[in-house]
Amino acid sequence: MKKLYFFGMLLLSAVLVHAQKSEQATLSAIYTSALTNMEAYNNLRELCTEAPGRLVGSPASERAIQLLKAQVERLHPDTCYLQNFITPSWRCKSPAQAAVLYGPKKEELNVINLGLSVSTPSKGIQAPIVEVQSFAELDSLGSNGVKGKIVFFNKSMDNAFIRTFSAYGDAVEMRFSGASKASKYGAVGVVVRSLSTELNDFPHTGVSKFEVGVKQIPNLSISTNDANKLSALIKNQKGLELWMKSTTETIESAHTSNIIAEIKGSVHPEKIILIGAHIDAWFNTQGAHDDGAGCQQMIDVLRIFKALNIKPMNTIRLVLFMDEEMYQSGSKEYAAFVGKEKREHIACLESDAGGLLPIGFGIDCDNDSTIKSIMKQTATLADFGIYLTDKSHAGVDIEPLKAFGYPLIGLSTNSQRYFEYHHSANDTFDQVSRREMQLGSAAVAGLVYLIDKNGI
Amino acid sequence: MKKLYFFGMLLLSAVLVHAQKSEQATLSAIYTSALTNMEAYNNLRELCTEAPGRLVGSPASERAIQLLKAQVERLHPDTCYLQNFITPSWRCKSPAQAAVLYGPKKEELNVINLGLSVSTPSKGIQAPIVEVQSFAELDSLGSNGVKGKIVFFNKSMDNAFIRTFSAYGDAVEMRFSGASKASKYGAVGVVVRSLSTELNDFPHTGVSKFEVGVKQIPNLSISTNDANKLSALIKNQKGLELWMKSTTETIESAHTSNIIAEIKGSVHPEKIILIGAHIDAWFNTQGAHDDGAGCQQMIDVLRIFKALNIKPMNTIRLVLFMDEEMYQSGSKEYAAFVGKEKREHIACLESDAGGLLPIGFGIDCDNDSTIKSIMKQTATLADFGIYLTDKSHAGVDIEPLKAFGYPLIGLSTNSQRYFEYHHSANDTFDQVSRREMQLGSAAVAGLVYLIDKNGI
Repeated sequence: MKKLYFFGMLLLSAVLVHAQKSEQATLSAIYTSALTNMEAYNNLRELCTEAPGRLVGSPASERAIQLLKAQVERLHPDTCYLQNFITPSWRCKSPAQAAVLYGPKKEELNVINLGLSVSTPSKGIQAPIVEVQSFAELDSLGSNGVKGKIVFFNKSMDNAFIRTFSAYGDAVEMRFSGASKASKYGAVGVVVRSLSTELNDFPHTGVSKFEVGVKQIPNLSISTNDANKLSALIKNQKGLELWMKSTTETIESAHTSNIIAEIKGSVHPEKIILIGAHIDAWFNTQGAHDDGAGCQQMIDVLRIFKALNIKPMNTIRLVLFMDEEMYQSGSKEYAAFVGKEKREHIACLESDAGGLLPIGFGIDCDNDSTIKSIMKQTATLADFGIYLTDKSHAGVDIEPLKAFGYPLIGLSTNSQRYFEYHHSANDTFDQVSRREMQLGSAAVAGLVYLIDKNGI
Repeated sequence: MKKLYFFGMLLLSAVLVHAQKSEQATLSAIYTSALTNMEAYNNLRELCTEAPGRLVGSPASERAIQLLKAQVERLHPDTCYLQNFITPSWRCKSPAQAAVLYGPKKEELNVINLGLSVSTPSKGIQAPIVEVQSFAELDSLGSNGVKGKIVFFNKSMDNAFIRTFSAYGDAVEMRFSGASKASKYGAVGVVVRSLSTELNDFPHTGVSKFEVGVKQIPNLSISTNDANKLSALIKNQKGLELWMKSTTETIESAHTSNIIAEIKGSVHPEKIILIGAHIDAWFNTQGAHDDGAGCQQMIDVLRIFKALNIKPMNTIRLVLFMDEEMYQSGSKEYAAFVGKEKREHIACLESDAGGLLPIGFGIDCDNDSTIKSIMKQTATLADFGIYLTDKSHAGVDIEPLKAFGYPLIGLSTNSQRYFEYHHSANDTFDQVSRREMQLGSAAVAGLVYLIDKNGI
């Protein structure tokens, strides 16, 4: 009996070692497939070239949907279809303009519209300017200091943060709600310093929102170089005024779609591992890092599974969401669908941190044993440079799925370069390193493979 | 007594916690200083713009020496001087050319000289071409297959490697000794596929050497795109010949210099912690990543120590080496000087892996307890993204110092993008991310601070 037990244990450990070896061999094959294949990179070039500025409701967004759907279909997934819905939309009808005026001088400034900004009258508006670096400063100026003026929010991103997303979190409120707050004090317009870690000429856009009932005023973003120029002028010139012009349009209901595609599970087709990214990109960008690369990485996960003939036990569902940037309408639509469909999502993964070197995963989940289990899987990817998995925000598109109790997992990247590109005209295809983007495809494919195989 | 012992232990642990806290505070201050200061980045712009192609002996290399010395002197180190020496030198007198000829057709190819390549006759040479992908293939062709021909070494870098330096190591032999081996079989010229992980139009150069007694033949590098074009033509066209032209010059003795600067140690001025990088860069590059960024990081270490008023116990010696790329004459000169000077080097650090995201350090040392001690220090930098320290090659310039028993430490970076730039015209200032480069300054400054304080 003892002998039998001994041989049984020997057999078991041999089986385990074999399973581990075959797991490592599959992970290696996944990485090799990702790093030696050009399809995702060429697809990204096509997306950036053919459909830049693909904000929801735009003609470019329709081109992007067709183009991405065709890219997915070339992989022959089991299903591929559009999830159609209606959403509000917004666009710039012509590029925003601004100039600073003092004495007889007029100097043009490098500006663009912030997302959802309203129009000025067709001749623009001109008013004295007041600079603040914080909401506290705005509050201390109050109506007396702000009424009838244009407010210039000039808070820099703090380069002392090691992680740039922390610096973004620290500064983004000015852009997001600065105009709303300034409007309450009677400001007639707002200019916000670009959220960039660098001094450059690429103004950065992004969404801004007004509290309900607050008068909407036009708000622009100014490049960091011109923010410094403007700030210096304000210090040195008396009677300085700003002129700004914005021509935008809100469309109440636009037709658009998410893209959904699946590789059906061989054992539990009813259970889903979701992999997602977002299709839309700001009007002023190619959306290479944000989030063209994410879309291509997730499409590439399907390609890798197909190429290596890995038959997942559970269904792998790709969702390319429309409209992450403005209203999150695609994300809401998908969450509503999940509420009706009632199919368990084992995990929901998103890639929306740029096609940069992957360094780990961020897990958004309230269950500690689930987090521990996911961390055990990501630890398996240590040899491939995945060293930093922690509890953090995972992704805007998958966020509503947390309410169902599903664990959310976001790909984390080296963020040092991210705010050189983010939401600016500098977010172009040539700023993406093929190998860095492809390591992201591999990291997600690897983790999906492990979660599918070992569960959570 | 017991009570006294207890309080003694309490005091000791309080002192230790305080020391640890103050260590962490200093490391944070080092990172903040690096990330929020623009000097190193602006200095790099100046070096790349004013002194591109600064190969030893070139007028650009002299400009680089003057410019870097002035940058160092602005920091008011305790000493700053040139270590002058004489070295051979080599240059392209005019850009290399090549074309493929078949039938009535002649197509220009995108080529450059490999380092130390000899000239062709002024009209160039024309000969049939034979393609190989390995030395084994060359050997099997032998004199019969090679004599009188131009050999085309067309081995790609293998993208399946996770670390690109491994792929480089795997492929570099063709470039380094391909011409020498082909010449032994009677080849009249050599064209080598560029060492790039990508398909692009930036031919990559680098040094190539001939065995003593072997006839030197001209050898060029061809861009990866044109290597593919040429290979396809060879497969499909009969009677195909290659024409190539190279006009180069070797200078037997050129005057040049290393730059040395020191912050004197407050306790052990006689002991040295060396921080180094190399000044020279290939004729076809700005040398931004290789190794302008390394020079600026090491200069920045001095700036950081000065700015934070950290008084090192041991002397910090900056050595900017001339001529890493061709003859390593600066490195040999410094090693000879160390042999005479006989001052202990506690550690020798080099940065020559590009101004890319630092991820760890490579230690070149035969003493395991020394390695363990260095790893303990680098582990202190984990919160700053330093997660991968291992035993590996540390740097070409510091390599001769190993013979003295000194531990060598090289900064390791995210190498995924490196072979998009390396030794090519694509190695430009705009490819360097300020924050990534500055994290390198901080990582080296942090490790120097720890080694100086805690010893090895």
